[in-house]
Amino acid sequence: MLELLSEHACFGGVQRFYRHDAQAIGLPMRFSVFIPAGAHAADAAQKHPALFYLAGLTCTEETFMIKGGAQRVAAEEGLILIAPDTSPRGANIAGDSDAWDFGVGAGFYVDATEAPWSSHYRMYSYILELRNLLVQELGIDPQRTGIFGHSMGGHGALVLALRNPQLFRSVSAFAPIAAPSQCPWGKKAFTGYLGADESSWQHYDASALVRSQQGKPALFPQGILIDQGLADKFLPEQLLPEVFEAACHDAGQPLQLRRHAGYDHGYYFIASFMKEHLRFHARNLR
Amino acid sequence: MLELLSEHACFGGVQRFYRHDAQAIGLPMRFSVFIPAGAHAADAAQKHPALFYLAGLTCTEETFMIKGGAQRVAAEEGLILIAPDTSPRGANIAGDSDAWDFGVGAGFYVDATEAPWSSHYRMYSYILELRNLLVQELGIDPQRTGIFGHSMGGHGALVLALRNPQLFRSVSAFAPIAAPSQCPWGKKAFTGYLGADESSWQHYDASALVRSQQGKPALFPQGILIDQGLADKFLPEQLLPEVFEAACHDAGQPLQLRRHAGYDHGYYFIASFMKEHLRFHARNLR
Repeated sequence: MLELLSEHACFGGVQRFYRHDAQAIGLPMRFSVFIPAGAHAADAAQKHPALFYLAGLTCTEETFMIKGGAQRVAAEEGLILIAPDTSPRGANIAGDSDAWDFGVGAGFYVDATEAPWSSHYRMYSYILELRNLLVQELGIDPQRTGIFGHSMGGHGALVLALRNPQLFRSVSAFAPIAAPSQCPWGKKAFTGYLGADESSWQHYDASALVRSQQGKPALFPQGILIDQGLADKFLPEQLLPEVFEAACHDAGQPLQLRRHAGYDHGYYFIASFMKEHLRFHARNLR
Repeated sequence: MLELLSEHACFGGVQRFYRHDAQAIGLPMRFSVFIPAGAHAADAAQKHPALFYLAGLTCTEETFMIKGGAQRVAAEEGLILIAPDTSPRGANIAGDSDAWDFGVGAGFYVDATEAPWSSHYRMYSYILELRNLLVQELGIDPQRTGIFGHSMGGHGALVLALRNPQLFRSVSAFAPIAAPSQCPWGKKAFTGYLGADESSWQHYDASALVRSQQGKPALFPQGILIDQGLADKFLPEQLLPEVFEAACHDAGQPLQLRRHAGYDHGYYFIASFMKEHLRFHARNLR
């Protein structure tokens, strides 16, 4: 079911790359896993907490594991890390590689309803499928799964968690596209994948999802953690954390939105705050 | 003199990429620097220790800063990190890109004496030039400079330190090419850059250099640290740490050679032991 592509000892545990036939996508997909010492599937008498990381535009299943600097703390915390790819590969849809913000490397973690994308671009369902698969195959603890991500992947993490709080018990993001219905990246992606009817977009807009909870108990009473660099060139036009912040405020959803002077949109920023995100999730999943 | 190409906030300090005209090379060269908080040149009342990292075959000045996971501990220790490129670029010598283990990306940290390489491939002198330049331009402390590296860069670090112990006060390596005169990579590189006369090779062979110290006080009384993975596919034929180990033993040079079951030659191995190398250098440079 899972084809092991490569394996590397890492911080006392193991860094693996897998390929498998993804039902939701209808194509093979790759993902990476870091498994700390003592948490290998075969010998896991006790199931381990797991944290999914969704990467941003143009990234692959390798980006986070190479650049994130997460394995050291994950090893300390006994956290399994899982990083999926960011889109189907090999769908061979005309125009799927014309832009870096749509198509290949830019699946936006939605289930496309518009042809020709709807046949393969179903990354929302794919992430749920992958979670279920790894509960079976790698022995991750279904009661202790969290999710986080960066930029497009921060959007994906927030949406997947807000729609499935029973599956993802902890959520954080680095510089997420926090209100995609209102920014150029999101409008382009949602129009392409979901069509012009904006009502369908709301199911994939973290700010709209939080706002729809108004009057109900907070989905994440332990809070949502977001880090945002203030030298991030995408901040004013594309990311809109202030929209998400207002929605959380109005809905009574605790949010820790930390704004960091000088930091940009890249992995030097992400790595700088990785440890605190991992500690946050480890606490929530304890 | 230094052209700043890019700059990123990172762990409270700054990650920079520079280009400059390298005298030893006769071409522009790129390098990267991580400067921890409080160690910026402009406001450095007190000079900071610095650690050079020499990368391996096919790498660039970016590899270590992206994959090494070193900035967190460097920030804690107040260590400036410097990573040069691995060869001249743009020399346009016929055949310089035909192989991944010779020419572009494979300068081997020697001063070539054979035409046509001798005009630009002078990476040994270049590393010394860069060190002097950064003492001037970035305020690194000339009394507290160390060096380390990986594979070809581990070879380079050992050779530069053993020949210049007054300049590099601390040295370590990950999976170095420890006896290049005796392995295929080294023989190919040295024949190409230095010619067939093997006596000239000894100046660039860490094992020969250590052995030549026999009967004299150890150059590094605080020891040399080497980490080597036992699942490294290059270990038996190319790396030969046992040759270096025997030379250190015979010469009375303290060596901590740690062999790690399961680890391979890549950056998941390097990152796993990065923290201990940085602590080792910080101690030696205190």
